[in-house]
Amino acid sequence: MNNYTEYIQTHKTRFIDELLELLRIPSVSTDPAFKEHVFKAAEFIKGQLDKIGADKAQVCQTDGYPIVYAEKIIDPELPTVLVYGHYDVQPADPLELWDSPPFEPVIKNDKIYARGACDDKGQMYMHLKAFETMIQTDNLPCNVKFMIEGEEEAGSESLATFVKNNKERLAADVILISDTSMLGNETPSITMGLRGLSYMEVEVTGPNRDLHSGMYGGAVANPINVLCQMIASLTDENHHITIPGFYDDVEDAPEAEREGMRKAPFDLELYKKKLDIAEVQGEKGYSTLERTSIRPTLDVNGIWGGYTGEGAKTVIASKAYAKISMRLVPNQDWYKISELFQKHFEAIAPPSVKVKVTRHHGGQPVVTPIDSVAFKAASAAFKDTFGKEPIPLRGGGSIPIVSMFKSELGLDSVLLGFGLDSDAIHSPNEHYGIFNYMKGIETIPLFYNHYAKLMREELVS
Amino acid sequence: MNNYTEYIQTHKTRFIDELLELLRIPSVSTDPAFKEHVFKAAEFIKGQLDKIGADKAQVCQTDGYPIVYAEKIIDPELPTVLVYGHYDVQPADPLELWDSPPFEPVIKNDKIYARGACDDKGQMYMHLKAFETMIQTDNLPCNVKFMIEGEEEAGSESLATFVKNNKERLAADVILISDTSMLGNETPSITMGLRGLSYMEVEVTGPNRDLHSGMYGGAVANPINVLCQMIASLTDENHHITIPGFYDDVEDAPEAEREGMRKAPFDLELYKKKLDIAEVQGEKGYSTLERTSIRPTLDVNGIWGGYTGEGAKTVIASKAYAKISMRLVPNQDWYKISELFQKHFEAIAPPSVKVKVTRHHGGQPVVTPIDSVAFKAASAAFKDTFGKEPIPLRGGGSIPIVSMFKSELGLDSVLLGFGLDSDAIHSPNEHYGIFNYMKGIETIPLFYNHYAKLMREELVS
Repeated sequence: MNNYTEYIQTHKTRFIDELLELLRIPSVSTDPAFKEHVFKAAEFIKGQLDKIGADKAQVCQTDGYPIVYAEKIIDPELPTVLVYGHYDVQPADPLELWDSPPFEPVIKNDKIYARGACDDKGQMYMHLKAFETMIQTDNLPCNVKFMIEGEEEAGSESLATFVKNNKERLAADVILISDTSMLGNETPSITMGLRGLSYMEVEVTGPNRDLHSGMYGGAVANPINVLCQMIASLTDENHHITIPGFYDDVEDAPEAEREGMRKAPFDLELYKKKLDIAEVQGEKGYSTLERTSIRPTLDVNGIWGGYTGEGAKTVIASKAYAKISMRLVPNQDWYKISELFQKHFEAIAPPSVKVKVTRHHGGQPVVTPIDSVAFKAASAAFKDTFGKEPIPLRGGGSIPIVSMFKSELGLDSVLLGFGLDSDAIHSPNEHYGIFNYMKGIETIPLFYNHYAKLMREELVS
Repeated sequence: MNNYTEYIQTHKTRFIDELLELLRIPSVSTDPAFKEHVFKAAEFIKGQLDKIGADKAQVCQTDGYPIVYAEKIIDPELPTVLVYGHYDVQPADPLELWDSPPFEPVIKNDKIYARGACDDKGQMYMHLKAFETMIQTDNLPCNVKFMIEGEEEAGSESLATFVKNNKERLAADVILISDTSMLGNETPSITMGLRGLSYMEVEVTGPNRDLHSGMYGGAVANPINVLCQMIASLTDENHHITIPGFYDDVEDAPEAEREGMRKAPFDLELYKKKLDIAEVQGEKGYSTLERTSIRPTLDVNGIWGGYTGEGAKTVIASKAYAKISMRLVPNQDWYKISELFQKHFEAIAPPSVKVKVTRHHGGQPVVTPIDSVAFKAASAAFKDTFGKEPIPLRGGGSIPIVSMFKSELGLDSVLLGFGLDSDAIHSPNEHYGIFNYMKGIETIPLFYNHYAKLMREELVS
């Protein structure tokens, strides 16, 4: 490959400025108040794809937010890479915990601070700039298709329909996604597994109206107390989940993988120090790395009920609510787990309250093959730019669409992530290192190159 | 007594209109946003006291909200009644559950709907109208002093200082308070006991920032889950409170009182139906009436943490909060109970989190003597207007200042309450029956009359 690194260095400032422009669009997909901005972000991506020489760039309308599609077919005989990413972001609240406004990106200590800086605008935009670089330096060795959606943080509902209806247009050899993280900038790793997700909301209703806690306290079930008891009972003293059947389908991770995790560089003291916690806490019999990758979990993501303002109000609330999500591992099925949760939660409710369980969204857990051509190409690309063989690792998060791509398109995904766990995605002060952004733009063309070469070799052999 | 009932009937419309005017002032004492309105309510009361012929009416400034004082000393030889009430109200939220705006009173089905309609503006204002009636019809048989405060819903902090500094001015024979309820309009009762209160707020801190629940879930203690477990552990399967030492000072109610409660008219099915609950729930071994009067309780009044907006956010919150209050019975001491709570809550926190416990306010439980002249006078007055002997009952709520009056001024209080438990005080759609408002205005002059007569007889005997 010729002068592509020089091109990247020459245009570095512009590459960053364009990302900042994208980050200024508050494209929060879960909150209808941001609707117009989500559409605006789609138009921005479409415009950029046009500009860098992709063909047939189009904002494809759906029942929800649009999917931006574009392609560059240079030779039907060459392999095709389908790039997936998302232009929507998580809500920014609690706003008061941000050091600078979430949608006014700032650069501090060589990091870009903004909602979406890493997840996924920063990581997704690397692919546009890598593509531009390959085109401009005459280094594009594969066909490319882009599919950038706007509902990833809200469950990717429209994407499934889009994929079903566009199988021919989306035909490819592999899917390339940058939406995960590495162990560290000195310790490159590639995610080869992702946890699934089942996200539920529960409502506990006691009396039909808020009551005075003096007049009724002690005789009427308090829905907040009851909700706390129900939630507490969902895990036992060893932090096992108590929902009957929950672990039935869990496939234990291979001993070799656990052995590898034990050897992976991980500093527990530093981990605790960075989070300012005295102790970690999790399922008995597993290490911290294992607890966040090969084991399922249950977390309350939000809880509310009663009086939450300043001062004191002596009230027994009529209702209490919680958002509860479970991370799943192979071979758990999120539909089944959601049903088990619902049945169990309804079953443990005392007769003094009513409960309502609703399902938000979910996704299947996946493990991608590490002996595939694509994974080998990714490893080789990382080795070129980081100077080290990357460690294959399972990530704790969920990208539900990976299993959908497999079932609908028959394609494996390569998770070429350049974020760090400390990037505070989904949290106040989300950021993305400029080192990581630029490293991504450098590594992606190498992936294309290795992939094209390995595919050619495979064809010959 | 001559034509006083005629005077009340003649002026009924105005008596109601004046109360509506007072109810239009949103005097929420716990929320600083309503500050000017709380002051305005004090001025309103002061103006009315002037108008109806009370002397020395004064808005007495304090470190918090003012106390309105006025008096009518007709003869130093006559007994003096000190009337206590409050012009502040509870917060009105959740606003969306009100059928009409909380500070725009409406009359429906002979009931006045507004925040404070019963607690305590309606009940307190009866005393001003009863006083006016006695003055206008030449029926005032006692000296009267008024002390109307503005921080009852916020812990009455300034009142204690005011009482300490004004012992001479407040010298009286008995304190008269209308801030409690009766069993029913056909079943008059007088509250002879009140529960105490200890109101705490807790904060549980896990990691130093909100985390992505996929990347950290399973390895880091989730403060919401931990808070739920801690709250759940505060009561056992029999709904006993598990805080060590909590029941040590509880004085069991006399068997005769429990026997009386068993005979009091109470329809459990109707109670459940009105609240739309399938079952009541409470401490094993006690009836519903006992659970809400002679037994202590623990209720979560509010809980919050994490993402509570629309949709789903996969976050592990850094912090979770709850407001927790305990109702106390004789001889529990609220200072001691608050300390026991704090120690216990800190002790049960797992090492993976930090907890902070703060105290809102509290008050001592009280039982007032039912063989006193004042209680007898109250019983006689009720019998006159309701045609039935009132049942002496303990109330479940707390009026912390009753025990403070006893210790600072050496005075017992008579709780001449005309509300109903169904008035939805502290809840949306609080209301007060016009029957009850007018019955109070009729009964109060009779209390004065009986009290003066019984005091004369006692002096003679």
